[in-house]
Amino acid sequence: MKSATIVTIGDEILIGQVLDTNSQKLAQSLEGIGIHVNRMISIGDSREEIASTLSQALQNSDIVISTGGLGPTKDDITKSVLASLTGSKGFVRHPGQLEMVHTILKSRGLDVLPINLAQADVPDTAEILVNRLGTAPIMIFRNVNGGGTLYALPGVPHEAVGAIPQVVEDVKKHQQLSTILHRNVMVYGLAESALSEKIAPWEDALPKDMHLAYLPNPLTGIRLRLSCYGGESARQMEKMEAEVAKLKEILGDLIYADEDSNLETQIGKLLKKHGLTLSAAESCTGGEIAHLITTVPGSSSYFLGSVTSYAISVKNTVLGVPSSIIEKHGVVSSEVAAAMAEGVRKLTGSDYSVSTTGVAGPGADGDIPEGTVWIGVATPKGTYTVKYNYKNDRKRNIERFSASALNFLRLHIVSELTH
Amino acid sequence: MKSATIVTIGDEILIGQVLDTNSQKLAQSLEGIGIHVNRMISIGDSREEIASTLSQALQNSDIVISTGGLGPTKDDITKSVLASLTGSKGFVRHPGQLEMVHTILKSRGLDVLPINLAQADVPDTAEILVNRLGTAPIMIFRNVNGGGTLYALPGVPHEAVGAIPQVVEDVKKHQQLSTILHRNVMVYGLAESALSEKIAPWEDALPKDMHLAYLPNPLTGIRLRLSCYGGESARQMEKMEAEVAKLKEILGDLIYADEDSNLETQIGKLLKKHGLTLSAAESCTGGEIAHLITTVPGSSSYFLGSVTSYAISVKNTVLGVPSSIIEKHGVVSSEVAAAMAEGVRKLTGSDYSVSTTGVAGPGADGDIPEGTVWIGVATPKGTYTVKYNYKNDRKRNIERFSASALNFLRLHIVSELTH
Repeated sequence: MKSATIVTIGDEILIGQVLDTNSQKLAQSLEGIGIHVNRMISIGDSREEIASTLSQALQNSDIVISTGGLGPTKDDITKSVLASLTGSKGFVRHPGQLEMVHTILKSRGLDVLPINLAQADVPDTAEILVNRLGTAPIMIFRNVNGGGTLYALPGVPHEAVGAIPQVVEDVKKHQQLSTILHRNVMVYGLAESALSEKIAPWEDALPKDMHLAYLPNPLTGIRLRLSCYGGESARQMEKMEAEVAKLKEILGDLIYADEDSNLETQIGKLLKKHGLTLSAAESCTGGEIAHLITTVPGSSSYFLGSVTSYAISVKNTVLGVPSSIIEKHGVVSSEVAAAMAEGVRKLTGSDYSVSTTGVAGPGADGDIPEGTVWIGVATPKGTYTVKYNYKNDRKRNIERFSASALNFLRLHIVSELTH
Repeated sequence: MKSATIVTIGDEILIGQVLDTNSQKLAQSLEGIGIHVNRMISIGDSREEIASTLSQALQNSDIVISTGGLGPTKDDITKSVLASLTGSKGFVRHPGQLEMVHTILKSRGLDVLPINLAQADVPDTAEILVNRLGTAPIMIFRNVNGGGTLYALPGVPHEAVGAIPQVVEDVKKHQQLSTILHRNVMVYGLAESALSEKIAPWEDALPKDMHLAYLPNPLTGIRLRLSCYGGESARQMEKMEAEVAKLKEILGDLIYADEDSNLETQIGKLLKKHGLTLSAAESCTGGEIAHLITTVPGSSSYFLGSVTSYAISVKNTVLGVPSSIIEKHGVVSSEVAAAMAEGVRKLTGSDYSVSTTGVAGPGADGDIPEGTVWIGVATPKGTYTVKYNYKNDRKRNIERFSASALNFLRLHIVSELTH
């Protein structure tokens, strides 16, 4: 299997001013063509750091992709480091990139300065891919000092990401690549440790060329990713499907998606497919459930709306939750969760509704501990409630409450549609 | 100046499935106490890689912070690597973390399995900081093989970020750090380039020992951080305050906070101080505004509630927006934004309200381009609207719309309270 190192150059990353998103995009693309990224490194704009990091990476990997350090200003010194690293005898002005410099600056209504023209100057050891999104060219240095091939990309995210198709095409042309396959399954309702115990016999019996990873996320549950390296694609995919089928038998409706997804997307698919609508009544989740549902493109076709009832008066007047129920059972109760779900279902005329009432914290609310939530779901067939306790900070509690509510809703939709 | 290396461990990062956000947060914090991060490295869950990378980093840096590879499942092998790297003679079960494992699992209603108890087992060469957000402890290995000190943190982002204050405190206690002072100011309403131009004369005239950083964030605007290295604290702070005073004159009400903060917190402070209440009516932001407002602890004292009116019927019946207005001006219009704000203000009886109606995308809605939003604010003195155009993907548009709405609300609250 061919290997790669991704190197990000720039002081702004090391002081935390800028989040490096280029490396992830590059890694996804390399992984997609079966190249193993063995390391990502971020270094500063220092001549020595750049030289030593790149030389070492080129000795350890078939491919090195660097981003950053190619701009027109003084702190961008990468190009001269690359010239000396590759034994260049001088710079040449690349006609294709030169034309692009003129075109880009003209389109921005800017004068072409000497500093801009110099962007098209490249070491004579480089092959060039013209960068159509910016003034700095994409440079390729093949088999540097008998080692790997270096692709030097600009650091501006849309230019770096924009260069990926050209880089991938070149890599495919010059490297002999093996296959790699992934298969994702989404699980909600078990902690990582409990899930791990539950599927241990299955995991232990996996074929040697398959590898399982747990990727937990408070809003989406746990993504189980099965990977398979090498071999013939169609045959390997068949083998993976057989393993996934066994996994599905073990986990049942703990699995909510057969691909990389999230709860709100899966709920949306179910509702859309059956022409059903949804609404929400939120207290402690304060709008997060509605927010999650509406991050899905096209959610306006099934999501009618929601009420965030932080004040008791809003629970009374807008949702129609009777004061007597609140007085008798307390705001954080099964009865209020049920009345909220029923209230918003009636108010909006939706088929399904989901509600939350709880204590996100910090601190308890009377004798109700922080992290307590009652969730309600009202459906054409009835109203259901469930209680959970979490122990996180306010933000994380809100996330857990919201995801648990979406999962409770999902289970009821699935159950009513299939029974 | 002391140096640090940040090491992220996990295959999921190298294949691009997860974006590493821990390193940025750690870098910001280290930079904040005057430590120079010389390199960030991401490596896979491989015994050899972890051992060689950490040993080398510990020889090159005073401090190494690793995140990841400490979970209960099989693919987490970091702990045993750390044991052999530091010459540990065995593992000991740490009572503080053990108690936390019990507490956390109990609060989640989960059984405590052997695999969970093992989370509290640490090499006898480690000092422990109890992780209160998860089951894996924070481990400190001092002066490993005569080199730097290693802090091994869990990889789950909220646990890693949650551990930062404890780590920073320990670093401050054990390292001789040169003084560094920071002063933050929050700005909303200008792009980074425009802000940079506006304050260029001020920035260019800053004293040599002061440094300005721009820290942009779609939800909070731009944090301007002024840093001052070395010197006597009280005297330096005075100098910085003088510079901040000049900056305030230049930027006026573009500055919304005199400290590291966010719009929803500042709005909350204003409302609380004057005993005022708030509500929201959201269309294209789908609950995000209510969610942001309610992430602030204590928001229940001023936030009454909100209506997410995705369907036109909900705009009519719940918010009382007349059909005639929608037919005449379209859903995405100044008139509908105003009617929504007035409707929810009346419905909840709040002093202030904020509303949004727009097109988050993907794609235009008829002749209204993607990224268009009308924002409304209703106050005791009147109703105001404003239109913005952004050009991002759906999620980012929703964030921009929400932050712009909060800023528009803030400006009206401030103006009415001070005039």
